Amino acid sequence: MPALSPEQLYLFDTTGFLLIPGAFGTDEVAAMRAELDRITPADSGFANTARFTDLPAASGLFARTALDARLLGPVRDVVNQPLRLLEGYGLRRGPDSVLYLHGGNAELLDLDGGTVGRDMSITHTYHDGKLYCPYVKTLVYLSDITSREDGSFCYIQGSHKANFPLLRPRAERGARASLIDEGFPTLSDLYVRAGDLLLLNEALMHGTRRKRTPGDRLLVAYGYGPTFLTDWRELDGETGDLRGAGYVDHDVEEDFVHDAEEGLVP
Amino acid sequence: MPALSPEQLYLFDTTGFLLIPGAFGTDEVAAMRAELDRITPADSGFANTARFTDLPAASGLFARTALDARLLGPVRDVVNQPLRLLEGYGLRRGPDSVLYLHGGNAELLDLDGGTVGRDMSITHTYHDGKLYCPYVKTLVYLSDITSREDGSFCYIQGSHKANFPLLRPRAERGARASLIDEGFPTLSDLYVRAGDLLLLNEALMHGTRRKRTPGDRLLVAYGYGPTFLTDWRELDGETGDLRGAGYVDHDVEEDFVHDAEEGLVP
Amino acid sequence: MPALSPEQLYLFDTTGFLLIPGAFGTDEVAAMRAELDRITPADSGFANTARFTDLPAASGLFARTALDARLLGPVRDVVNQPLRLLEGYGLRRGPDSVLYLHGGNAELLDLDGGTVGRDMSITHTYHDGKLYCPYVKTLVYLSDITSREDGSFCYIQGSHKANFPLLRPRAERGARASLIDEGFPTLSDLYVRAGDLLLLNEALMHGTRRKRTPGDRLLVAYGYGPTFLTDWRELDGETGDLRGAGYVDHDVEEDFVHDAEEGLVP
Amino acid sequence: MPALSPEQLYLFDTTGFLLIPGAFGTDEVAAMRAELDRITPADSGFANTARFTDLPAASGLFARTALDARLLGPVRDVVNQPLRLLEGYGLRRGPDSVLYLHGGNAELLDLDGGTVGRDMSITHTYHDGKLYCPYVKTLVYLSDITSREDGSFCYIQGSHKANFPLLRPRAERGARASLIDEGFPTLSDLYVRAGDLLLLNEALMHGTRRKRTPGDRLLVAYGYGPTFLTDWRELDGETGDLRGAGYVDHDVEEDFVHDAEEGLVP
Repeated sequence: MPALSPEQLYLFDTTGFLLIPGAFGTDEVAAMRAELDRITPADSGFANTARFTDLPAASGLFARTALDARLLGPVRDVVNQPLRLLEGYGLRRGPDSVLYLHGGNAELLDLDGGTVGRDMSITHTYHDGKLYCPYVKTLVYLSDITSREDGSFCYIQGSHKANFPLLRPRAERGARASLIDEGFPTLSDLYVRAGDLLLLNEALMHGTRRKRTPGDRLLVAYGYGPTFLTDWRELDGETGDLRGAGYVDHDVEEDFVHDAEEGLVP
Repeated sequence: MPALSPEQLYLFDTTGFLLIPGAFGTDEVAAMRAELDRITPADSGFANTARFTDLPAASGLFARTALDARLLGPVRDVVNQPLRLLEGYGLRRGPDSVLYLHGGNAELLDLDGGTVGRDMSITHTYHDGKLYCPYVKTLVYLSDITSREDGSFCYIQGSHKANFPLLRPRAERGARASLIDEGFPTLSDLYVRAGDLLLLNEALMHGTRRKRTPGDRLLVAYGYGPTFLTDWRELDGETGDLRGAGYVDHDVEEDFVHDAEEGLVP
Repeated sequence: MPALSPEQLYLFDTTGFLLIPGAFGTDEVAAMRAELDRITPADSGFANTARFTDLPAASGLFARTALDARLLGPVRDVVNQPLRLLEGYGLRRGPDSVLYLHGGNAELLDLDGGTVGRDMSITHTYHDGKLYCPYVKTLVYLSDITSREDGSFCYIQGSHKANFPLLRPRAERGARASLIDEGFPTLSDLYVRAGDLLLLNEALMHGTRRKRTPGDRLLVAYGYGPTFLTDWRELDGETGDLRGAGYVDHDVEEDFVHDAEEGLVP
Repeated sequence: MPALSPEQLYLFDTTGFLLIPGAFGTDEVAAMRAELDRITPADSGFANTARFTDLPAASGLFARTALDARLLGPVRDVVNQPLRLLEGYGLRRGPDSVLYLHGGNAELLDLDGGTVGRDMSITHTYHDGKLYCPYVKTLVYLSDITSREDGSFCYIQGSHKANFPLLRPRAERGARASLIDEGFPTLSDLYVRAGDLLLLNEALMHGTRRKRTPGDRLLVAYGYGPTFLTDWRELDGETGDLRGAGYVDHDVEEDFVHDAEEGLVP
């Protein structure tokens, strides 16, 4: 019994994401907020952004949420493989925080032997009526984000199926500011309310706008994938003994954005 | 600097495997054989088949071999992702051993929610001049295998890019004997000498013939994949807490072959 | 020397179309309008819509325009095959005219032997840095269309790469009104000025809004494809002798929209 | 009701061809031979090869054969589009005739603007349980061809799904003899009897061996495709007015093979 309707599946396939408004009620949102208030976050490494790591280990509530049918149902419909939880975390962001664009189906990745245009951890396909997305996230929003100034989720339309890279060619043409600030014809925003659920194909190039408004911007996120994927952790590249396990980044805006930074965030 | 020539890459792409004859010399083969004689194998669960598990941990020689450029060069050319070693093992097989067909690009896999036709751990693709095979094996042969009776490696031509499943529809038509015994128009054999290296796309449907000759049939094998894949271990299916990690089988001949078994191996 | 910049190619690939504003100047627009005033249109079969057929045969100006580098340059960049002109026509539309949605990468087509989900005349692909779109149109707008009420071009985001059908499942659920009237989360509008050029992948599901404003809505359109495609003409289906040539429609909204029609256009 | 069994479809998909032995009986073969004796062939342009052009126009028998269910059934199962007959011809070949390799899924084609790796007239795909091959041939053999010396049909395994080009890189490395003479690890032969039917995906790289035996080698062939394809005729490239229609060749061995020619066919 699929959790997603045919139209929802069509939307997820064609756009790379699906918003399910009001998946969680006001009480549930309040409970999750309260639970996060009890957990000590780590420094995320990003400005004005606190990260709650390994939420399923830190909290029974968040362990249960990871297995909640409201998340798992949609996830199963688009992963279509024996499933595992890759990670579960929370993000509390304050003013001037930002998340530059990352993802994209054909952005470049440097190997010792050259440059490649696929990150297989996000390379998805379709066969006989089913999608196969190896890396899917569910985001449960615990804040209203109703304008760009609130730091809205933004994405490049159709980038989850892009055949061409966008970021490196742009950087090679000398562009050093984020598309989030410079704009792009198909950069679009998604506005949400606390309790909304976002199902996301990690192949979509996405980020968030610079938050300009006061108050926090809070969410919890879970990553899912097939059972043969490792727990998510960042790996710079392969290790000398070839035993290192983790995820590597292909081109992301962080790699290229710098000059404009000081001017833009005064 | 690619390890494979354009014609070797063409062959690997179009057939799903590449034989590199004489990759290892006589002395090296003898040293590997001697090293395996010093290691205690486990029961493989297959008839007349001993399995040496985790060779890189058990032996410096086999740890070094896992990183040998003769293996890694070709592997890198067809994985094209930050690399890790998923497993390293040896197999010593005696008379009447067999390995039924498994692999195939579109064989079926049962999930709770239905049946799917992709095992993403072997789903490969191509982009801008490069192959992306997530699960590649290198087999170093330590025996000559020059006839079907020696238990030759056999495969279904083109099965690594098959759009249709083969095994379950066949079983549903009532066929219960292995294609290895029944034959199939495109079931083909590969004969090798000790020291030969086989580079294998795990999406190819392959197995071995029943060994009928005396003497052993010995090889060591290494599996490689992107850094975001787990160490290889068998997982029946997903776990209740979604924290289990491992590889699951889509349809393999073992699932279907039984009735004929007693008659065929008298 | 490509006509399209990398960003334009990225946009065309990810969205299925590309708008090139101001490709033709005011004088050129006026000359094309004047030329159309001299040509007798045919009845298009659509309400308040006149169709100028075979413009290259009817007019030297429109024959030259078909070969104009402003059209051919972008077309070549996305067809990447030896090229031919499949058709050239004009459309003059008045109030209450509409063009229902058609196109889409996976809409259904009935054959004698069953239903299929591909129309190969619009099935496009990508290989080694190049797009291969077999059926591409260029639309030269001769009117400003700056609101839905002007009968704007509208499209379903990402439908040129959709894996699922949209229209028939919707009709089977009982929906009988056009998405143009009912709305769809990813139905989007494109506003243009006279002189703008639209490059369109015919795999995109697109149509136009109902025109509500006075004045005409005028454009000329050229279809291009590889040399092995026939001139465009409508063919209901295959002919008994298998010698008939032409294009057949997979599901379009026209097939399903009717009940609501009278109510909506009183 | 499909004409091909699941195993036949699997074979056609994975190998690019399917042999249907004994599709036509002895009397039918005799009748077709007799009919060809009554028709005047044209010079094919190839050595010792006579070509019977437009057989459906020349002969009621061959017009009926073009529509025979034994041909159309299998063709429909792999084209899955509204169908048309693109051509029907016969070939009578004598000693020393040869047909160099042509086809291949990724061989190169020169356009004014650069080189491309797709010939869309043979680019096939798969969707939801069905193949979509735009250009399929059926060959009815009217001679036994049971050895290479008889000029057997030969092909490169898996070339119908090749991601890389083979012929031009080989020529650029200086190779000037045909693979038919030089050999290639996956060049394979198909032996047939009069009355056998060969269903062929034109994307397969194929040719015939040099005929060395006396007697003729006779067959009739029909090409089929979707209704939007033109009748088959050779077109060197696009025409200046973009109205020319026909098929162009990507790289074929003929383009590269010459130096060795005199030595090989003395």
